Amino acid sequence: MQIDRSPLARPFPAMPHIAGVTLRVARAHYKTWDRCDLTFAELAEATSVAGVFTKSACASSEVELGREAVKLGRARALIVNAGNSNAFTGWRGRAAVEAIRAQVSSALGCKLDEVFVSSTGVIGVPLPIDKAGAGIEAALKAAPCGWEDATNAIGTTDTFTKGAGASAMIGDTRVELAGIIKGSGMIAPDMATMLGYIFTDADVAPAFLQEALERANAATFSCITVDGDTSTSDTVMVFATAKAGNARIENWDSPGADAFAAALVQVCRDLAQLVVRDGEGARKFITIRVSGAASDDSARRIGLAIANSPLVKTAIAGEDANWGRVVMAVGKAGEPADRDRLSIAFGGVWAARDGVPVEGYDEAPVAAHLRGEEIDVAVDLGLGEGRATVWTCDLTHGYIAINADYRS
Amino acid sequence: MQIDRSPLARPFPAMPHIAGVTLRVARAHYKTWDRCDLTFAELAEATSVAGVFTKSACASSEVELGREAVKLGRARALIVNAGNSNAFTGWRGRAAVEAIRAQVSSALGCKLDEVFVSSTGVIGVPLPIDKAGAGIEAALKAAPCGWEDATNAIGTTDTFTKGAGASAMIGDTRVELAGIIKGSGMIAPDMATMLGYIFTDADVAPAFLQEALERANAATFSCITVDGDTSTSDTVMVFATAKAGNARIENWDSPGADAFAAALVQVCRDLAQLVVRDGEGARKFITIRVSGAASDDSARRIGLAIANSPLVKTAIAGEDANWGRVVMAVGKAGEPADRDRLSIAFGGVWAARDGVPVEGYDEAPVAAHLRGEEIDVAVDLGLGEGRATVWTCDLTHGYIAINADYRS
Repeated sequence: MQIDRSPLARPFPAMPHIAGVTLRVARAHYKTWDRCDLTFAELAEATSVAGVFTKSACASSEVELGREAVKLGRARALIVNAGNSNAFTGWRGRAAVEAIRAQVSSALGCKLDEVFVSSTGVIGVPLPIDKAGAGIEAALKAAPCGWEDATNAIGTTDTFTKGAGASAMIGDTRVELAGIIKGSGMIAPDMATMLGYIFTDADVAPAFLQEALERANAATFSCITVDGDTSTSDTVMVFATAKAGNARIENWDSPGADAFAAALVQVCRDLAQLVVRDGEGARKFITIRVSGAASDDSARRIGLAIANSPLVKTAIAGEDANWGRVVMAVGKAGEPADRDRLSIAFGGVWAARDGVPVEGYDEAPVAAHLRGEEIDVAVDLGLGEGRATVWTCDLTHGYIAINADYRS
Repeated sequence: MQIDRSPLARPFPAMPHIAGVTLRVARAHYKTWDRCDLTFAELAEATSVAGVFTKSACASSEVELGREAVKLGRARALIVNAGNSNAFTGWRGRAAVEAIRAQVSSALGCKLDEVFVSSTGVIGVPLPIDKAGAGIEAALKAAPCGWEDATNAIGTTDTFTKGAGASAMIGDTRVELAGIIKGSGMIAPDMATMLGYIFTDADVAPAFLQEALERANAATFSCITVDGDTSTSDTVMVFATAKAGNARIENWDSPGADAFAAALVQVCRDLAQLVVRDGEGARKFITIRVSGAASDDSARRIGLAIANSPLVKTAIAGEDANWGRVVMAVGKAGEPADRDRLSIAFGGVWAARDGVPVEGYDEAPVAAHLRGEEIDVAVDLGLGEGRATVWTCDLTHGYIAINADYRS
């Protein structure tokens, strides 16, 4: 099935060069296609690494090994295989990842734990070691490529190429960040995955890098959903090559730590929103702002309950200001809520205040807002200071078409 | 929009007469329709009552008052309003329920807390007290009707009429149970609700009735889902009129207690499955059997994670034996699971065993099974003795059409 480019797509941005990162792509032929499907990012010595991985109890060997290796904080290479997620493949899948690590560590003269591997695509089929090996050989000989080629090579069912850049000042030194991501929502046909990689030339200690990534992740990737289905291979990693020459960021008291963390959040949020914009069947990009909750975490869970509700998502697809469905989703979230303090707005217009419909509520501006592509839903719980913003897309016939109207 | 009768519909069954229950229906004109939309069930003196209600934090006044009144254990009347759920209506909604209770308690000479009220339909509109009052007057004068008329009167977007009967022997005395239910999945356009009522002529102490209902609910209504959206008004109640003349069931040691509880489970399961069969857009009825989990409760949560996964539901709609999506749903459930012990079967054929695809797995019988209307998915965790069965339906274009392709 041919899937059209998302109407919410964004052009690939101008992205900064990151010293210490060399990108190469190759054809490993993981599927019967003629496209680059193996990406090889070579990283300078002394590159710091941090990562966050799926919480799935059925994670792939790539995730298991990566989760352990980031604790050591050093990276020399990232290899991404597209077309085969190598998940649910037992010892054969594990052997394939270990073979890739051995081949790359031998070629670069680095440790096994400095080689990171991700795979995305069909599950239940062990990654073919011979194809991976030949692909890596080809990549090692290939000319370096740019961000867009590398991003295309990690994609599977993505309908557009997704990247985001940012910069920050650390003392007098300007550092650059470049992030790329693949994913058509949290999920895609054949259970492909969301994989995101951020590269920076900043000099950052691994422990700080991990902490900054976890904070950024909590406010960005953990706040998006397409359909609530969590993949077995979701991965976001950040690599810091230390080539910018800034004073090393060791902790939150280091000069420039906040500026770097803010730039990281910006890249993560841009990438996360791009994934939602490529959500399967998406026609509308929905921002859900929750305030007045018992805590920030409670606000996020309420936001996700709204964002994952099929009734809310179909109502917005139908351009219907059905705030009753938002009430329902708040009520089912399992979080503190008081029906008689709850207020709901669409596009800045309050439809319900303190548990009752607003007297003389004018639906005309709300209806106009809902006909647009960017939908804003605000929910105030009236209980406390907790707040969160969550992003999602609508649920349309396109989603059903992509996921049901096919034979695998 | 005209919604077709579900292809999974069942004919309304022959239902037993329950001595001590008198059913009447009337036209309250809650919407601009000409159909009976108010149901009045008069119950004999000494009728025991038990109930389970939505856990929504935004429940209606009907639910709040009913939840309190069942603790007293006595019922003389049940009034069900269809077309207006009276949820999210503040003090005006509460006043309407209190007015109904006052009118009925005065007419029957009973206590306010012996009158139970349910409402289902659009939310955010206070139930009009004058229409309710006139409807109750009309019902009090109407001739008694049968189960099918009463069930039709409580329905809203249901595409077929749903009832189930059973009997049990308590010593030498045969007791009868009759249950009726409305709901098109857990949800319906305008956030209508699932309401179920079971009537029996057995003599049962309220405390035991409540305990038996909670046990039955845990294995039946708590094990169905259409889309994971929990309504603000879900209610299941059981009324026992004590007219059968059996020795009163006081506790689990009373003669016939197990037989009665088993009959109650049977009626609840039949009703719960009928709701799934009327799930919005449903084309396939899916049974998910989970075994080998850490506990029964863990098995149920894993089953619901599978049943609520849009990817699993669309795969089955597409008649695709995509067991990878089942792996994904198990992995995201947040319950104990070991990828390398997990086994998955469709229609009794194991596709994956102990974390890897079955060698030489023959997809032909599985494909034939998936072309049918009754789909069986089995998941074995390989961890413990916990087991549960969950029922759901597929996710189709019909669901989107019902919930998005309309203007309210």
